[in-house]
Amino acid sequence: MTTGEAPTPRNRRLNKSVVLKRRPVGAPTPEDFDVGVRDLEPVVESHVEVENLAVSLDAGFRHWMDEGSGDHVLPAMELGQPVMGLVLSRVIESRHQSFEVGDVIVSRLAWQEYSQFNGDSHHIKIHVDETLGLDLGVHLGILGDTGLSAYFGLFDHGRPTAGETVLVSAAAGAVGNVVGQLARIHGCRVIGIVGDDEKARFLVDSLGFDGCINRHRDVAAQLKELCPNGVDVYFDNVGGPILEIVLDHIASGARIVLCGAVTTYNSSEKVPGPSNLFSLVTKNATMTGFLTGQRHDQYDEARSRIIAWMQAGQLKNLEHRLHGIENVGPAFCDMFAGRNLGKTLVQLRPTAPEPP
Amino acid sequence: MTTGEAPTPRNRRLNKSVVLKRRPVGAPTPEDFDVGVRDLEPVVESHVEVENLAVSLDAGFRHWMDEGSGDHVLPAMELGQPVMGLVLSRVIESRHQSFEVGDVIVSRLAWQEYSQFNGDSHHIKIHVDETLGLDLGVHLGILGDTGLSAYFGLFDHGRPTAGETVLVSAAAGAVGNVVGQLARIHGCRVIGIVGDDEKARFLVDSLGFDGCINRHRDVAAQLKELCPNGVDVYFDNVGGPILEIVLDHIASGARIVLCGAVTTYNSSEKVPGPSNLFSLVTKNATMTGFLTGQRHDQYDEARSRIIAWMQAGQLKNLEHRLHGIENVGPAFCDMFAGRNLGKTLVQLRPTAPEPP
Repeated sequence: MTTGEAPTPRNRRLNKSVVLKRRPVGAPTPEDFDVGVRDLEPVVESHVEVENLAVSLDAGFRHWMDEGSGDHVLPAMELGQPVMGLVLSRVIESRHQSFEVGDVIVSRLAWQEYSQFNGDSHHIKIHVDETLGLDLGVHLGILGDTGLSAYFGLFDHGRPTAGETVLVSAAAGAVGNVVGQLARIHGCRVIGIVGDDEKARFLVDSLGFDGCINRHRDVAAQLKELCPNGVDVYFDNVGGPILEIVLDHIASGARIVLCGAVTTYNSSEKVPGPSNLFSLVTKNATMTGFLTGQRHDQYDEARSRIIAWMQAGQLKNLEHRLHGIENVGPAFCDMFAGRNLGKTLVQLRPTAPEPP
Repeated sequence: MTTGEAPTPRNRRLNKSVVLKRRPVGAPTPEDFDVGVRDLEPVVESHVEVENLAVSLDAGFRHWMDEGSGDHVLPAMELGQPVMGLVLSRVIESRHQSFEVGDVIVSRLAWQEYSQFNGDSHHIKIHVDETLGLDLGVHLGILGDTGLSAYFGLFDHGRPTAGETVLVSAAAGAVGNVVGQLARIHGCRVIGIVGDDEKARFLVDSLGFDGCINRHRDVAAQLKELCPNGVDVYFDNVGGPILEIVLDHIASGARIVLCGAVTTYNSSEKVPGPSNLFSLVTKNATMTGFLTGQRHDQYDEARSRIIAWMQAGQLKNLEHRLHGIENVGPAFCDMFAGRNLGKTLVQLRPTAPEPP
């Protein structure tokens, strides 16, 4: 550097980040990530600095770790650079008129302790209302993209009516468990698909699911038994071979909602789709894909309803929470290994509400 | 026979039928069918006898020629028995109160010159209004299942708005050509996918398509050129690999309508589906299958609009018409070989309107 002061040990500020050490091949492993320390530069004009409170782990971000993935909106992540994700943060310095110190926001930032961004161009998901008295982590989970995906995917696209059978895959996952709970509140018969019997028991005993299918056993036989009249709504978080099996068991007029496709995120080769898409024709059925972020005008109403159900004890916020920047990479890998129940997040700073 | 008179040459009545000689392997060939002659028995109580005016050829019926296909509604066709299809008929004898001699109906009957059925249990598609002054063949084509599939598939499921790009496969086929014409009337930009350049020219020059893609050349490159802003509505009559290519070119919010899947009708093995169904998620897109027969309350309105467009010269009834029972089998095979332009039917008796 030729201008300005060289940082001295006294005013030097450090920032720990999770960097992409190598591009995952298949499922990510902890060795794909590294924790690095960098200097935090002073905040420049029109920029904002935040301390990151918690990192959201989302399977969908796996895609952008691949070489050549991404587009002009979400470019592929760069090797040796901090990994990008969805982060809950608090503003600690602002040189931009739209932000004040203390503001809590959710936005796409790196997996690191501090971040800086240009207030003009940075896309903020939400400014958080801290008066709710809830742990701020809910804004990455049940009140964040996760919960809203479940809410809009189920109600806008699945359109279930009371008494219908709703099937949800990855039912113990971040989105799936909320879908199941919302469908139950709505008066539907709810069947989940999960990877082990312990999760199945938990969903039935603690979240009120009517039944669960273990995807490692004969899925078709379990479907036939648990959904004898066919599946009216299938909320699909996984894609792959299970979608094909379910297509053989849909009821007339069924709605299939595609929310994610975990089975394909780790694949570098093309995975063939279901051979029986024609079931959609013979069953007058619909398959809809969606991304959250399309229903901004209805977010407030959705959050109010979710909060009311939580306060009434009808809806549980299921969270798999780890602590410390060193645990972000491993937590991401755990999620793909199916070790999580509910929303996976890593807390970096306290998120509990201030005592009144 | 132990009771009644044995038929004598004088009162014996003969009936020619197309019978299923052998089950087609892959695409049907003329050798799969035979024309047989049977005796027509007297009409028994509560039964009706019709003379068949024309036979509709529908690719979807290919499926029921396979061993073990079918269900309790549409059982698999039997070897050595008359082939079932959709038939336009006129009642010539009735021993059932719901039918009068002279009634014209469309229903599921065999490919033969005469048919008898139980008036209580037979499913009638329509009683035809003969006062329209149209050739009765339209009731198998543009005013029948074919035209209504195009109409409801496009307007109810495709939901195009003026200015949007509508892509239709098998665009020179029975349903496809109507979809394209309706979309053009609706103010859309219409691109067809066809199997040869002659059909492409015809659709552009005579039916007002904005462009055509030859599926034997690089479909992706042609799509990119002809649909530079992506495909808003894809009306899919063929399924298979083209669906996968189109999924890579859909616009945000696209609607895919699955009407048929000709590419799979002839296959005895499972054909993998598209590997990129996840495009539905990233594009907030919908894929809907449908069968006609779900919108009975709107049939009259749909037919009135279609008739008005025909009378205004905006909508052409495109027909590939052959004559004589011997040509029914070959006509069915021609259709799979792509030799038809528009609706394929075989006329057995005059269908032109009576001069006023």
